Amino acid sequence: MPIKGLIFDAYGTLYDVHSVQSKTEQLRPAKSDLITQIWRLKQLEYTWLQNALQGYRDFGFITEASLVFALRAAGVEPSQDIIKSLLDKYLDLDPFPGRGGCRLAILSNGSTAMLSALVKNSSLDAFLDATISVDDARKFKPHPECYALVEKKLGLKTDEVLFVSSNSFDVTGAKHFGFKVAWIRRGGLAAPASPIGPAQMYRLLRANAETLGYSEDYTVAALTDLITLL
Amino acid sequence: MPIKGLIFDAYGTLYDVHSVQSKTEQLRPAKSDLITQIWRLKQLEYTWLQNALQGYRDFGFITEASLVFALRAAGVEPSQDIIKSLLDKYLDLDPFPGRGGCRLAILSNGSTAMLSALVKNSSLDAFLDATISVDDARKFKPHPECYALVEKKLGLKTDEVLFVSSNSFDVTGAKHFGFKVAWIRRGGLAAPASPIGPAQMYRLLRANAETLGYSEDYTVAALTDLITLL
Repeated sequence: MPIKGLIFDAYGTLYDVHSVQSKTEQLRPAKSDLITQIWRLKQLEYTWLQNALQGYRDFGFITEASLVFALRAAGVEPSQDIIKSLLDKYLDLDPFPGRGGCRLAILSNGSTAMLSALVKNSSLDAFLDATISVDDARKFKPHPECYALVEKKLGLKTDEVLFVSSNSFDVTGAKHFGFKVAWIRRGGLAAPASPIGPAQMYRLLRANAETLGYSEDYTVAALTDLITLL
Repeated sequence: MPIKGLIFDAYGTLYDVHSVQSKTEQLRPAKSDLITQIWRLKQLEYTWLQNALQGYRDFGFITEASLVFALRAAGVEPSQDIIKSLLDKYLDLDPFPGRGGCRLAILSNGSTAMLSALVKNSSLDAFLDATISVDDARKFKPHPECYALVEKKLGLKTDEVLFVSSNSFDVTGAKHFGFKVAWIRRGGLAAPASPIGPAQMYRLLRANAETLGYSEDYTVAALTDLITLL
């Protein structure tokens, strides 16, 4: 079947989650890298733990809980001021450069409220046909009910979809569901240099292909390379 | 209700998963820390991802898949020799010192085959009334069906159980299920020193309390302190 829709993951794929680092650098310069990396690692962990606990709480809750964890782990008191500053930045992340030329949508772990603010703040709303939150499945990716929202919301069959993500766990989940998948592998495999700090640990854990047995159909280095697939 | 059974998590709680580092040091001294930490972080991630993918594959598969990931991430070719050496070590981990004096059992993510070998190799089998694998639930902790195996296998009611784990995600899951929970907090909160390497990142992510809203009943520093709770 021809590709009729291009569905994007949001955080890490269209939006640079590490752009919160500019804010942590203002607030806690010495611990900025550590807070940023632990926050994002824990935020993902909590989506998977929450799935297993079988009681959905939206990505706003998850994002705040993981931020509190990260601040404490870095030895920073999680005051209301610092939490509010960093959560506000999460609603206005920097978009990665590049955009496609066909029917476009986001499918993200973000809550409806978070995504709506983010897409508006970055002016991507003008280019998107839909912004789909996993809120409607009350599960987080890679749960199959999340990917099933694409057909429910857009009427696209599984084999008409090219799903695009830079998150390798999301590539695994989308292939397992049955989508065609393009993996945006930014920076490629980081050959480990010494010393390995928090940012390198994050990249080693996130930027390499998962080994659970579901491989992507296409690998591209940047959003702008997607045009060659269509 | 009085406590009638003491149920232990195995990996990280009764057994030191970082004792594989002695083997990685023999095989790849320069990358030993990195391989060990990424292996264990990824192994946990894969249990949660596999839960979400809803197709159970046992902890033997998960342990090998995460090892292959860790070796590649560290820039080491995942040869059959190195994989076999490290997986064999996982069947003969070093036990932490200390043991309790009442009815004792393990509830672990380990597969039946892995746990059976591990408990035998460490001679803990003489002290245990049961070794329960999540294999029988075909889910990984913190899924509630895993904790429910304790009543099925030992006839203990939820409020008769003290569940013991050093893994904070497991504390969250066991409290969410309804057990009384003792958290073994080895080493306590690591105040982050600079530079933060792979071992520090592991501890920061794993040795701090989770923030999803389920707190332990007791915190102890070592297995031997459990005796004071009974």
